[in-house]
Amino acid sequence: MSRNFLDIDVSFALKKGNPAGRGLSDSELRKSLGKIKKGMEKLTRLVDDGEVGFTSLPYYENELKKVTRIASSLRRRYRRLVVLGIGGSALGTKAVIEGLRGVRKMEEVTVFDNVDPEEFVPALEEFPPGETLFTVISKSGGTAETLAQYFLVLDLLKRRFKEGWKERVVVITDPKKGFLREVAEKEGLLSFSVPPSVGGRFSVFTPVGLFPLSFAGVRVRKLLEGARVVDGAFRTLPPEDNPVLLLAAVYRHFFSEAAKNAFVFFIYSSFLKRVGEWFCQLWGESLGKRDGSGRPVGQIPVVVTGVTDQHSQLQLYADGPDDKIYTFLRVVDRKRDRVIRGAGSDGRTSFLEGKRLGELFDSEFDATRYSLAGRGRPVVTITGGRRDEDFIGGLLYLMQCVTAIVGLSCDLNPFDQPGVEEGKILTKAMLGDASHSSRMKDLEKFRKGEGRKKVRLEL
Amino acid sequence: MSRNFLDIDVSFALKKGNPAGRGLSDSELRKSLGKIKKGMEKLTRLVDDGEVGFTSLPYYENELKKVTRIASSLRRRYRRLVVLGIGGSALGTKAVIEGLRGVRKMEEVTVFDNVDPEEFVPALEEFPPGETLFTVISKSGGTAETLAQYFLVLDLLKRRFKEGWKERVVVITDPKKGFLREVAEKEGLLSFSVPPSVGGRFSVFTPVGLFPLSFAGVRVRKLLEGARVVDGAFRTLPPEDNPVLLLAAVYRHFFSEAAKNAFVFFIYSSFLKRVGEWFCQLWGESLGKRDGSGRPVGQIPVVVTGVTDQHSQLQLYADGPDDKIYTFLRVVDRKRDRVIRGAGSDGRTSFLEGKRLGELFDSEFDATRYSLAGRGRPVVTITGGRRDEDFIGGLLYLMQCVTAIVGLSCDLNPFDQPGVEEGKILTKAMLGDASHSSRMKDLEKFRKGEGRKKVRLEL
Repeated sequence: MSRNFLDIDVSFALKKGNPAGRGLSDSELRKSLGKIKKGMEKLTRLVDDGEVGFTSLPYYENELKKVTRIASSLRRRYRRLVVLGIGGSALGTKAVIEGLRGVRKMEEVTVFDNVDPEEFVPALEEFPPGETLFTVISKSGGTAETLAQYFLVLDLLKRRFKEGWKERVVVITDPKKGFLREVAEKEGLLSFSVPPSVGGRFSVFTPVGLFPLSFAGVRVRKLLEGARVVDGAFRTLPPEDNPVLLLAAVYRHFFSEAAKNAFVFFIYSSFLKRVGEWFCQLWGESLGKRDGSGRPVGQIPVVVTGVTDQHSQLQLYADGPDDKIYTFLRVVDRKRDRVIRGAGSDGRTSFLEGKRLGELFDSEFDATRYSLAGRGRPVVTITGGRRDEDFIGGLLYLMQCVTAIVGLSCDLNPFDQPGVEEGKILTKAMLGDASHSSRMKDLEKFRKGEGRKKVRLEL
Repeated sequence: MSRNFLDIDVSFALKKGNPAGRGLSDSELRKSLGKIKKGMEKLTRLVDDGEVGFTSLPYYENELKKVTRIASSLRRRYRRLVVLGIGGSALGTKAVIEGLRGVRKMEEVTVFDNVDPEEFVPALEEFPPGETLFTVISKSGGTAETLAQYFLVLDLLKRRFKEGWKERVVVITDPKKGFLREVAEKEGLLSFSVPPSVGGRFSVFTPVGLFPLSFAGVRVRKLLEGARVVDGAFRTLPPEDNPVLLLAAVYRHFFSEAAKNAFVFFIYSSFLKRVGEWFCQLWGESLGKRDGSGRPVGQIPVVVTGVTDQHSQLQLYADGPDDKIYTFLRVVDRKRDRVIRGAGSDGRTSFLEGKRLGELFDSEFDATRYSLAGRGRPVVTITGGRRDEDFIGGLLYLMQCVTAIVGLSCDLNPFDQPGVEEGKILTKAMLGDASHSSRMKDLEKFRKGEGRKKVRLEL
C-alpha cells in the first residue's frame, strides 16, 4: 500500500496563486507567520507550565496500552458500547468512527449526545442490556445532560442486574474531583482519567476518544501516529514549510487582519462530515469570545458536504457577500467506484459516458473550488491520501494546533468557554436548584418579556 | 387529541420584549411591515402572472389524489423506495420523513443526494433489486449528479430484469422538456410532473415530495392541510396578527436594515434537524445573491441542534460578535419521557431528582433563549403543538412564504440561482463536454495557480 499523506495547499488564498489575484501578498504572509510564531511560543510556554496538555497526547504510550488492553477484553464480553457524553465528550468519537466507515470493520458504538426524550428514551429501550456496556464521559464529572442520561441508565441496569450494574458502567472523568469521580471510587467502577490540562474539545486523544474508539476496533495507535507526524513537523520545520504554521498564518489573516465572518468547511467525502462537526466546536468555542481588550471576536463555522450542498449553499457563496473563507477537504484514494454506461447516445448526457462516478465527484470538487477562487474568494485545500487512522489522526491534531495558535496569536484564550455558564445556571435555577435561586428574579423578567408579540395559528 | 398549533413569538426581537431592550421599535416594526406588504404584493402579481406557482400547491387536489393512489398501489409491490435527487429534489422529503420519526410508522425510503462513490456504490448493492422501486427526480431533467446515479441504477436493473426495468423506475420532472421527460415518454415510464413555475426549493408539495412521502406512509393530505391554514392566515389576517407578515417583517429588518451576517436556526428536537437543513437551502439560495442594484447580499444559514450544540456553538453566540439572528424551534407535546431517579442524595445532582428528562430539555431551551436575549441578541421562537403532518406542512409553507416576500421586498429574485451555473459548466468542461471547451483556458489558468504554495506531510 502506498504511503499515506496530508497535503495543505493555500495557493488560492494567496495573491500569487488566486486566479483573481486576491489574497495575502508575500509580505502579508510573512507578517502573519511572524504573529503565528508568537502564538506558538505562547503555546510552548503554556505547555511547559503544565497548563495546556493536548500537545503531549500523541506520545501518551502507557495510557494507550491500558485503554486498548481493557477495551479489547471488554469487547469480548459486550456486543455494543453506548457512550453518554456531549460536546467534546462525543464529537471526536463520532468523527473518527464515521470517518472510517467502509474502511474498518467496527463494533457497534452509539453516542448519545442529546437529552431529547423522544430520541433518548426509545433508543435506550432498544439496547439489550445484557450485551451492552455503557460509558459515561464528562471531564468535570458534573455535566447536567450526561448525568441525567447516567441516572436513567443506572435505574435500568439496577433493576435488571442489581449489584451487577457496576461492571456495566465505565466512567471517564477528572482523575480526582467531581461527582462522577467520587461515584467511580465509591462503587469501584472501572474508570479512566481525563488530564485536567486537556479541555473537552482537545480531548479526542485521551481516553474520552481512545476508549470508545478502541472498543469499536479503530487502530488507535495509528491515529496517534498520524498526530505524531503532524506534531513533529510542527515542532521542527521552518515556518514557510511548516504545515501548522502556514495554515494558521492564512487562517489568522482572514480571522483578524482581513476578517471574514464565516469559516466554511466544504467536505467532499460523505463519511468525513462529522470531522467537520467536530471542527465546528473546536473553532467556534475556542475562538468565539472576547479578546484581551474586551472586543467580541469569532468566526461562524459552517460545515457543508460536497457535492450535495453545491445545490444548497453555493449560490450564496458565489454571488453573496465575500465574507467567508473556504477550506475544501477530500481524500484521493477510494475503495469503491463504478463506470457510468448508457449515457453516450444523447448529446446532453454523453459527457458522463465511460466516466467513473468518482471522476464526476472530483471534477465538481475542482469546479467548485475554481469557481469560488476565480471570484477572488480565499480557498484552502486539504487533501488526504486515503481515509484511515493516520490521516484522520493527523487532520484532527493539525486542526487543534492551528486553532490554538490562531487564538493565542490573537490575544484570546482558546481553552476556556465562559459564555456557556449563564445558560447552565439558569437551567439549574429553573429546575429549582436552591444554590441559584438568586437568578429567579431574572427569570421572571425574561418571562414577562415573552408573549408580548405572539401569533397563534390553530392547525 | 387536542388541537395542534403553530406559535410565532417575536417578543425577544422587539425593543419592548427583549430583556436588554434591544430590537425593533414599534415604528421600525411598522416600517418593516410596510415593506413586507410590498413584497407580498409583488408575490401576488408573480402568482397572478403564472410565474410563481408554489402558493397554489396547498390546493393541489387532483394531483394529490393521483399521487397517493399510485403510491399506495406501488407500496404493495415494493418494500422500499430509493430516491435519486439532490438539493430541492431531496431535502423536503428527508425533512418530513425524519420529522415524523417515532410518530408515524413508515416504509423505508432512502434518499441519495450525493455522488460520493464510497457511499453510493456500496449502498446501491445493499438494496435487493426485486423489492426496490427507484424514483429519479430532477426538475430540469438534466441534473448531472442525478443522471449519473440514474445510469448506474439503470445498468443494474437492465442486467437483472431486462425490459422489466421499466416498471421499477418512476420519473419526476418537467411536464414537457428535458432528458428525463423524453426518456419517460419514449420508454413509457410512470412519471409525474413538476410545475414549471415551481422551483426546486419550493417543490416539496409537488410530486417531488408528495410521491416519496406518500410511499413512505406520510399523511400527505394533512401536510397540505397544515400549509392551507398558514396560507389562509397569510391571505386574510391584518399585518400585525399575520404570522407570515410579522415573521417576515422581523427577519427583513435583520436581513437588511440592521443586517446580521447569519441566521441561526436552533432546533430543539433531534428529529426536526433536517427541517433546518431544508431551510438552509431555502434561505441561502433564495436570498444569497446580487440585489437589483448589483450589491451582493445574503445571510449565512446555520442549523444547530439543542441541547447538543449548546456544547459547541453557544460560547460563540454568547460572547462572540452580535452578528446573528436566532430562531428557536420546538414542539410541546412529546410521546415519550421518563422521570430521573437516584439523583437526590447528592447536593450537586439533586436538582435533577424527580424531574422528567423533558423538563431538563425544556429548561435548557428557555435558559439558552434567555441567555442570548438577555445579551440583546434578537431571538424568535417558533413552537409547535406536536410533531405531525399539519405542523410540519404548516412550518415548511410558512418558511417558503416568508423567504419569498423577504426577498421580493429587498429587491431580490428569490426564485433564481445564477451563481451555480459556472460550477456546472466547469464540471462539464473538465469531463470533456465539447460544448464547453472554450472554458479549458480558464481551467489551465486555475491549475497553474494551484500548487504555488503547498506543503506535504508523509504519514
